[in-house]
Amino acid sequence: MAAGSQGLLPLILGLMLCVLSPEGSQGGKLLVVPMDGSHWLSMVAVIQQLHQRGHEVVVVAPSSSVFIKEGAFYTLKKFPVPFQKEDIEAIFTGFGYGVFENEPFLQRVIKMYKGAKKNAAVLLSACSHLLHNEELMASLAAGGFEAVLTDPFLPCGPIVAQYLSLPAVYFLNGLPCSLDFRGTQCPSPPSYVPRSLSMNPDHMTFLQRVKNMLITFIEPFLCNAIYSWYASLASEVLWRDVTVQDLMSFGSIWLLRHDFVMQYPRPTMPNIVFIGGINCISQKPLSQEFEAYVNASGEHGIVVFSLGSMVSQIPEKKAMEIADALGKIPQTVLWRYTGSRPSNLANNTILVKWLPQNDLLGHPKARAFITHSGSHGIYEGICNGVPMVMMPLFGDQMDNAKRMESRGAGITLNVLDMTSDDLANALKAVINDKSYKENIMRLSSLHKDRPVEPLDLAVFWVEFVMRHKGAPHLRPAAHDLTWYQYHSLDVIGFLLAVVLVFTFIVFKCCVFGFRKCFRKKEHIKKTPKSKTH
Amino acid sequence: MAAGSQGLLPLILGLMLCVLSPEGSQGGKLLVVPMDGSHWLSMVAVIQQLHQRGHEVVVVAPSSSVFIKEGAFYTLKKFPVPFQKEDIEAIFTGFGYGVFENEPFLQRVIKMYKGAKKNAAVLLSACSHLLHNEELMASLAAGGFEAVLTDPFLPCGPIVAQYLSLPAVYFLNGLPCSLDFRGTQCPSPPSYVPRSLSMNPDHMTFLQRVKNMLITFIEPFLCNAIYSWYASLASEVLWRDVTVQDLMSFGSIWLLRHDFVMQYPRPTMPNIVFIGGINCISQKPLSQEFEAYVNASGEHGIVVFSLGSMVSQIPEKKAMEIADALGKIPQTVLWRYTGSRPSNLANNTILVKWLPQNDLLGHPKARAFITHSGSHGIYEGICNGVPMVMMPLFGDQMDNAKRMESRGAGITLNVLDMTSDDLANALKAVINDKSYKENIMRLSSLHKDRPVEPLDLAVFWVEFVMRHKGAPHLRPAAHDLTWYQYHSLDVIGFLLAVVLVFTFIVFKCCVFGFRKCFRKKEHIKKTPKSKTH
Repeated sequence: MAAGSQGLLPLILGLMLCVLSPEGSQGGKLLVVPMDGSHWLSMVAVIQQLHQRGHEVVVVAPSSSVFIKEGAFYTLKKFPVPFQKEDIEAIFTGFGYGVFENEPFLQRVIKMYKGAKKNAAVLLSACSHLLHNEELMASLAAGGFEAVLTDPFLPCGPIVAQYLSLPAVYFLNGLPCSLDFRGTQCPSPPSYVPRSLSMNPDHMTFLQRVKNMLITFIEPFLCNAIYSWYASLASEVLWRDVTVQDLMSFGSIWLLRHDFVMQYPRPTMPNIVFIGGINCISQKPLSQEFEAYVNASGEHGIVVFSLGSMVSQIPEKKAMEIADALGKIPQTVLWRYTGSRPSNLANNTILVKWLPQNDLLGHPKARAFITHSGSHGIYEGICNGVPMVMMPLFGDQMDNAKRMESRGAGITLNVLDMTSDDLANALKAVINDKSYKENIMRLSSLHKDRPVEPLDLAVFWVEFVMRHKGAPHLRPAAHDLTWYQYHSLDVIGFLLAVVLVFTFIVFKCCVFGFRKCFRKKEHIKKTPKSKTH
Repeated sequence: MAAGSQGLLPLILGLMLCVLSPEGSQGGKLLVVPMDGSHWLSMVAVIQQLHQRGHEVVVVAPSSSVFIKEGAFYTLKKFPVPFQKEDIEAIFTGFGYGVFENEPFLQRVIKMYKGAKKNAAVLLSACSHLLHNEELMASLAAGGFEAVLTDPFLPCGPIVAQYLSLPAVYFLNGLPCSLDFRGTQCPSPPSYVPRSLSMNPDHMTFLQRVKNMLITFIEPFLCNAIYSWYASLASEVLWRDVTVQDLMSFGSIWLLRHDFVMQYPRPTMPNIVFIGGINCISQKPLSQEFEAYVNASGEHGIVVFSLGSMVSQIPEKKAMEIADALGKIPQTVLWRYTGSRPSNLANNTILVKWLPQNDLLGHPKARAFITHSGSHGIYEGICNGVPMVMMPLFGDQMDNAKRMESRGAGITLNVLDMTSDDLANALKAVINDKSYKENIMRLSSLHKDRPVEPLDLAVFWVEFVMRHKGAPHLRPAAHDLTWYQYHSLDVIGFLLAVVLVFTFIVFKCCVFGFRKCFRKKEHIKKTPKSKTH
């Protein structure tokens, strides 16, 4: 039986009425403090939509930004910083190259940590230059903004929002060290919520749970080195003591680029809105160049290969290994690669400086996706139902890869250890073994079956915060408790004390009663004796 | 600036595309196992919508049902039970009257508990008669249903769903004794999540937190008396050991009639969908009779008074007290009351056997709402922005009233202790003190500002479960852990043991080393002495 159209009409009317609500019809002013890099790329779609809905958007970014450029649907206010775009590009490239250095594990970790700290110091300095730019901050204060949209990965935006006394909407893919859980006061039992970088699944073995618990213990200290700088900067600028927790918990709404086809189900909070897959909604037709590549691929179709916006070249030896593997499959491979052409590159492999990843994956001829398993790429793979060969490089990419692998939607390779054959075999498996395609199609159908598109949801909640000056009715009282109150330690202590005192009194009474009885009996026993004798 | 219409088009198209998804265009078969009473009234709107969208709905109910009657948009399958509709009506009336008996607190609680247990036994027997009705169960098994929609307040539906191996959607307003939290594995820290019947707010004093903790301790035992019957019945019918937790955790999606303008913000789970206010969407024009009453009320407007579907008459003395109070205000009072007319009833008070509550509250002349603060009534008050005088009678009504009072949207009265003046003063306050109106209008505007209407959301998720045969990707791994694994007690124990063993070894080594050193020194000290002497 077909669904009655009369049933759809009120549904659509209801949705339209909601979108067209009178409060929503007034355009407002929104301040955006974004993160540079891939983080910016999905946020920009929300900004475009907000602009189309009549809002005026001002984006504030350092003059050194790589990805944040002038746009037709927002005003870009750049502020000077004592370093150049090239310095930031060098950071990105260095980060990419660093991944491929085959050093002992501990040495690599220490090197990466030091590198991250150095780079974070550069980005902190950008934030400091914004907050101390009196002219710019004064113009923002007088700008008549209704809210701040920001990515709190490095929490400059939250400081700006607090400085301007504006409600904030956070737009992100999660934070390291469970800072997102702490910022939203969201419980995350370590028994089944895997910690980031643990590579644990949700159904853990005993030892995995031990590992998860140990990470839970050390997490607060791990991130403190970088995040405490922002707390100090905030305290200085806001003239009061500010903690990292204060900065994070300031968010009225958290737009989290998560979806439970990828993430493991876990507790959430009323002000967390899941918008995973927001980056793969708008599909455009392919350009002539790419259309030609795809058409020429014949019945075998294409494989899309990209290691993300930050890593476009890799060491020559690794590139040759990969080129060798790619030559072993009949598909045409479109590889985003800006390094020098590997000498052994096969005829089926086409190097491009940039590729329309989502549009290519959406083509019916896409057979597989070789990805670094960044969250954007993973969701594009899911949306378009393309099985993946994953080569995680850093950050949350290892976890993402493990999650997709556990769902049977792809194969994970260690980019350092893998051989040419490993890659070729993995590609052949995900292309020829039907289970990979079936699994990713099942995930895709679950992911795309949703009451509201993630982009519309993001736009709705940004406007909601603008309309209502925040969302205080979604803020849990947990934010106003100390850690021992939150865990009811004072109450448990009090109840234990009551029980102990009560037990002590009962015990004393019993002893007293027993003695009384015992003595009386002894006395009674003794008295007749004395009488009879 | 007006919102650009070009921005709305893709938004609406996106929403339409989603609603019109190919999977959704096929009508399916849905089995509904409802609860009788007010619980049925909001569920029926979802059934109507599903019918309009092309689905075939079969409702199963005992022959004694009071509220569940034949309907144009579903097939009602009644099954025989050894009691009549009148017996159930007598239970409802007795429950209503019991509330007004002015006995000592403990006596009342014991009486209510005994009454509830007796009534629950009757309703359990209805469930048993359904499950042992071989002919009906066989016809249901052969019915080709895709899912079960049920209210698990008394968990007969969950047993039916498990018996038929069908995924279940739970539709409810919460469960007593935190069974909803346990059923969804949703954390609920007692430090800020008030327990039902505690009348605590979310920001609690120390003593309120102690009370909350004590209730948390005794909750599992409180409800066991009634709910364990269903576990036994399920174990018998399903031929395996079934616990109450098993019955509750079977729900694929929990459609919870909550909204955070009324409930305090607290953790939630991915398979919990909030549809609070679902009962007050469809507003119809008033009948001639009620239109006439409202028009005749003049500038003072009307007050709507109802104690809910279960309590339509109260003891005469209390009715006279109330009638006296109602005569002291200039508004016209429409009072749903089926008892004998109080002799002191004033001219401004009109007794009616039934009233279109939501439609009357939606009239611009509605000035106040006297309610027993059942969840349906409260949401109708919020939707329509009408301040309330609340007289909670039983169950969650005390909590609902306290919540609305804490938000400044109404005044709570103790129906047993209140005098005629108390009621008159409360009515005058909520009508004349502008803050009550402002507060309820603020709540109303927050409540109605949502991306999808609750009815559409409920319909979407029922269809989702029908399409995908459940929602396993939203089921947390917590369901597969024992209680000590969930709380990581085994891991903590293991880590403590490791630390203790390590400390012990270090201590022993130190002692050993110390002794060695000490003896050596003593030896050295002694040796020179012997040499010098």
